[in-house]
Amino acid sequence: MPKISHRGIQMPPSPIRKLAPFAEATKAKGIKVYHLNIGQPDIETPQPILDAVRHSTFKILEYSHSAGNESYRKKLTSYYQRFNIHLDYSQIIITTGGSEAILFAMMSCLNPDDEVIIPEPFYANYNGFAMEAQVHIKPVTSTIEKSFALPPVKDFEKLITERTKAILICNPNNPTGYLYSQEELETLRQICLKHDLYLFSDEAYREFCYEGAHFSALHLEGMEENVIVLDTISKRYSACGGRIGAFVTKNQQVLDSVIKFAQARLSPPSFAQILGEAAVDLPVDYFNQVKEEYRSRRNLLVRMLNDIPGVKCPLPGGAFYAIAQLPIDDADKFCQWLLEAFSFENQTVMLAPASGFYATPGLGKQEVRLAYVLNKNDIHHAMICLEEALKVYPGRKVASLLKHSTV
Amino acid sequence: MPKISHRGIQMPPSPIRKLAPFAEATKAKGIKVYHLNIGQPDIETPQPILDAVRHSTFKILEYSHSAGNESYRKKLTSYYQRFNIHLDYSQIIITTGGSEAILFAMMSCLNPDDEVIIPEPFYANYNGFAMEAQVHIKPVTSTIEKSFALPPVKDFEKLITERTKAILICNPNNPTGYLYSQEELETLRQICLKHDLYLFSDEAYREFCYEGAHFSALHLEGMEENVIVLDTISKRYSACGGRIGAFVTKNQQVLDSVIKFAQARLSPPSFAQILGEAAVDLPVDYFNQVKEEYRSRRNLLVRMLNDIPGVKCPLPGGAFYAIAQLPIDDADKFCQWLLEAFSFENQTVMLAPASGFYATPGLGKQEVRLAYVLNKNDIHHAMICLEEALKVYPGRKVASLLKHSTV
Repeated sequence: MPKISHRGIQMPPSPIRKLAPFAEATKAKGIKVYHLNIGQPDIETPQPILDAVRHSTFKILEYSHSAGNESYRKKLTSYYQRFNIHLDYSQIIITTGGSEAILFAMMSCLNPDDEVIIPEPFYANYNGFAMEAQVHIKPVTSTIEKSFALPPVKDFEKLITERTKAILICNPNNPTGYLYSQEELETLRQICLKHDLYLFSDEAYREFCYEGAHFSALHLEGMEENVIVLDTISKRYSACGGRIGAFVTKNQQVLDSVIKFAQARLSPPSFAQILGEAAVDLPVDYFNQVKEEYRSRRNLLVRMLNDIPGVKCPLPGGAFYAIAQLPIDDADKFCQWLLEAFSFENQTVMLAPASGFYATPGLGKQEVRLAYVLNKNDIHHAMICLEEALKVYPGRKVASLLKHSTV
Repeated sequence: MPKISHRGIQMPPSPIRKLAPFAEATKAKGIKVYHLNIGQPDIETPQPILDAVRHSTFKILEYSHSAGNESYRKKLTSYYQRFNIHLDYSQIIITTGGSEAILFAMMSCLNPDDEVIIPEPFYANYNGFAMEAQVHIKPVTSTIEKSFALPPVKDFEKLITERTKAILICNPNNPTGYLYSQEELETLRQICLKHDLYLFSDEAYREFCYEGAHFSALHLEGMEENVIVLDTISKRYSACGGRIGAFVTKNQQVLDSVIKFAQARLSPPSFAQILGEAAVDLPVDYFNQVKEEYRSRRNLLVRMLNDIPGVKCPLPGGAFYAIAQLPIDDADKFCQWLLEAFSFENQTVMLAPASGFYATPGLGKQEVRLAYVLNKNDIHHAMICLEEALKVYPGRKVASLLKHSTV
């Protein structure tokens, strides 16, 4: 029997999805599970953009241009213009989800064995794309004590070698919800220019900022050749299943390279490009409404979390995630126990253990990620469940032991 | 300015699309261009499957399961059953086009620097996926003299090293249209079992066989651990823009690996999964009609080609491509000349030079690929254009010089 590849063996399974079989078993027992573990928004996809697809009249579902429909790319320039980001449509390549944009960035800019520095905890699927591109992730640790702010410059510089080619940030951040400030972006600018590094900026959650405006990497001056923005419509319009993202840069050499990767896979999905194009025409107050909903959920979630004895959760400035530190021995065990052995009033809650978002072994053992993608009533019940669970969890640890969690 | 990667530099541009700027310029001059260069079918996507998407009523465009919707995967088992291929739905992973299935196969089964043997001429994008996976393609040459039949076993065995992990075939073949026989598949079976190799079988054109039935790699006995079928709905239902394919194998280890790659990119496109699922319910005579249309186009195309003095084109058994040998000095030059310098009655024809489908330098210089994706009237006019062009092309060579083309 032929062997599978080293890559195939080492490829990490999704840490977010690994508890799924336990959740299925729990539901089969008739217990309601509140899913705070995964970033699938419950907000409805705006009707007009679904209608744009449903009312389409084309006769042949053709390949689009490998870079995406020109009409869509042109329209997207007006979307970015709202943020005072000035692009030519040729600087936007439509991708199959933000996922493909990340993979294209790693493939086009890094050689096998090159290194990319990423503040941890980070979006776990970056590991998968790094494995596919055969590049190494060097984590620089951000801590819950500092609300997951950008680590100091010296921590980055300690990691920089001749193999370092890029820094990757997610802003606002998944999984921490942290919103990087303009000052923090300027710090990254200095590091990148000094060491001739790319800055990959995953701005999937750009629209979801609750404390001040978003400062995009594309706003950084003198970084035209360094900045690549990885974008997606998935969260912005609750359109995760569309699989439409964008690769955005002013670096012409990089664009010339990425279009070849885009040609190899022919084209991004046609249906959802229609949806994405229609989305640019949504009324501007669409985001205001959605943002208000997420903001009020965040406020409820974080308040209720911090009201639970021994729980600590910094207020996230953006996205729809929060990381909380719990008075427990091991979040992996705890999350599994919540599904396997616990219920309160026939309900329980599913969380994502944060260990899967850290690259440094041992970190995040007492942390969980919560996605506030449920309505406030459900969040309320989920938090009551969590509070009750922490009262009876056999692996409960007192607060004084918590310091170890971020060593 | 940071450098792009070696991969980014070496990644081959699409040979099919490289003449596109010349075609644009030609059209701008008001000259009609018959596109025989690209496999975008003109056949309409069946209305019922477009309607399945257009009449959908879901409210949230959610991620699907990373392996695709269970309902679709289950339905696909009944599709394969029609070909006497018996699968459990867990043996099918829905991919983003056949493209992603090819990439997953290379990533999961081959280590960087491993080798895959592919009969040339072959689908040019295999080069791109090999580059992404950092694996090497070793071409085994099939010739127009033998109608692009499977090269002899000894030609394969000459290429097998300890680095060889797989043989990749496309059946029926793009770009040659050759339909491999059961005997040829049995030959591949013996080679793969003897040398412990995977057999990757790209069966994108399974439905388009004009001379006898299709014999799938999944029909081979004792090859459960070796065979991976790479599939797509793109050509089958004129649904190229849907970007829905499938990775099919009975090898559980490979499935366990591929699902991790699938999880990293979250899910395949949701809209077109609805379309793909509906397609399994199309009446069986749908393919008969489509196949008859392609068959009659093929007959017209090949007859008219062989009627042109100095042109030779074997009758392809499947797909919707043919490779013809022309009495010319260089197909790259000729194809560009057709667009830049020639027209007949204000019309010209766009062909794909075959050199881009060969990995061995120098091969295919007098060959072009023609995709019969236009109606018969257009094919008729395109062939008249080609005949007229060959009368006046400055680089015309007489037939006696043609022997060099397949050395």
